[in-house]
Amino acid sequence: MEFTKLGEGKTKEVYSFDEQHVLLKFKDTVTAGDGAKVDVIKDKGVINAQTSALFFRALEREGIKTHYVGMYDERTMIAKRLKMVPVEVVLRNLATGSIVKRLPIKEGEVFDPPIVEFFLKDDARHDPMLNYHHMEFLKLMTRKEAEQVEEVMVRANKVLKGLVERMGLVLYDFKLEFGRLGDELIIGDEISLDSMRVRDREGRIYDKDLYRKGQPLEVVASSYAEFLERLKRVV
Amino acid sequence: MEFTKLGEGKTKEVYSFDEQHVLLKFKDTVTAGDGAKVDVIKDKGVINAQTSALFFRALEREGIKTHYVGMYDERTMIAKRLKMVPVEVVLRNLATGSIVKRLPIKEGEVFDPPIVEFFLKDDARHDPMLNYHHMEFLKLMTRKEAEQVEEVMVRANKVLKGLVERMGLVLYDFKLEFGRLGDELIIGDEISLDSMRVRDREGRIYDKDLYRKGQPLEVVASSYAEFLERLKRVV
Ligand SMILES: Nc1ncnc2c1ncn2[C@@H]1O[C@H](COP(=O)(O)OP(=O)(O)OP(=O)(O)O)[C@@H](O)[C@H]1O
Ligand SMILES: Nc1ncnc2c1ncn2[C@@H]1O[C@H](COP(=O)(O)OP(=O)(O)OP(=O)(O)O)[C@@H](O)[C@H]1O
Ligand SMILES: [Mg+2]
Ligand SMILES: [Mg+2]
Repeated sequence: MEFTKLGEGKTKEVYSFDEQHVLLKFKDTVTAGDGAKVDVIKDKGVINAQTSALFFRALEREGIKTHYVGMYDERTMIAKRLKMVPVEVVLRNLATGSIVKRLPIKEGEVFDPPIVEFFLKDDARHDPMLNYHHMEFLKLMTRKEAEQVEEVMVRANKVLKGLVERMGLVLYDFKLEFGRLGDELIIGDEISLDSMRVRDREGRIYDKDLYRKGQPLEVVASSYAEFLERLKRVV
Repeated sequence: MEFTKLGEGKTKEVYSFDEQHVLLKFKDTVTAGDGAKVDVIKDKGVINAQTSALFFRALEREGIKTHYVGMYDERTMIAKRLKMVPVEVVLRNLATGSIVKRLPIKEGEVFDPPIVEFFLKDDARHDPMLNYHHMEFLKLMTRKEAEQVEEVMVRANKVLKGLVERMGLVLYDFKLEFGRLGDELIIGDEISLDSMRVRDREGRIYDKDLYRKGQPLEVVASSYAEFLERLKRVV
């Protein structure tokens, strides 16, 4: 691309678009275990860029601020340039994944109200959990900001959960990343099957857990594609 | 003893004293690594019972509610019978121990304001960290109670830190456990070198880290005894 590369993560490249905007180019990589496992799935980047775009638009329609501006090409998003906070904010409606290993909570237990957790983005330390005090000390966000972020998570959950339900599926949990625009924290990064857990009512997995659990790459690919097709029908 | 045993942990036995009270008999065991390492230090129970009693009295004098009532014998405390919440609440003034392993924080960094953390008492799961949402879901304490507990921790810190300073030493961190008395959460369990980290200004360790780091039991014993003697002089 004819733009300056600002950075690159495990699944996206970031380019400078203009002073206020970046381009987020979604790659075809799929990774798990803090980057320990890596593969390539043809056109996964296209699917995740499109999926993210649809979810961001749905949030914006409900008045929830995101970095989404539009698409530059099929795998590249134009986004407001944010100063990202290196924290993953997780909201859980149903228990699965790390929480059932860490705590005396069983797979499938229902969280109502949902549970919100903050994790430091730090692959080498395996993304340790943070509380308000840690985030203040590490100058990530103030307690007040963290409480606002939790409110945004709950509002975003209503929108995302509703859409996933209309697709006939169940939203177990999702992860968002936030960044600063002036003195506001708004939703950045992506919202895709890499960052949420979705199952059908029989428990069939649609999300990156397929890859984490060692399913063939074709299975992962067709699940991501099917999810996007279903999402298009409900937005 | 002529009392019914209600329970026994790694370092204390609990007996029924009367309807409203228990006896806490401090044993001579010293343990580390969630009970993986265990030894016996003669009269450690006596020293920890006395140390705890002095700290509890100091807190009570400052209007902070504890379970402490008095001593039954030199190693046995008469305490209000609480319904204990299986949570360890940790306050940190200076970074050491698990926090420097978990987070990008260096040994000896100063926390001002102090950092407060909640951990589930669950040796098999290695005492995982909890946030307000987890504690509500697990019916341990409400968010409001957790916030009150954090305030009590900060008030207790002022008292304990002040005493330790008057002993010429530095209070790095401490752990309290809380229990319910009616609809109040008050401080129970113990406050001793098993549950706090104390060093002198040159960094010489006084607390259970001596044992965790493999110092001879005599060194641990004399450190605990010296600490109690110094504490007696400042209360
Ligand atoms: N609106 C935005 N403005 C600026 N940077 C963004 C924006 N949205 C996302 N990013 C950043 O894009 C980068 C690439 O994303 P990717 O998901 O590939 O990274 P990662 O592998 O999760 O980890 P890391 O953040 O450590 O690079 C991330 O650093 C992310 O913070
Ligand atoms: N005031 C009190 N009323 C009732 N029980 C108490 C009180 N204070 C402390 N206890 C309980 O005394 C028990 C014995 O203490 P000890 O420190 O030996 O236990 P532990 O090894 O930390 O772990 P565990 O709580 O799993 O037994 C603990 O279960 C503690 O909760
Ligand atoms: Mg990422
Ligand atoms: Mg104990």
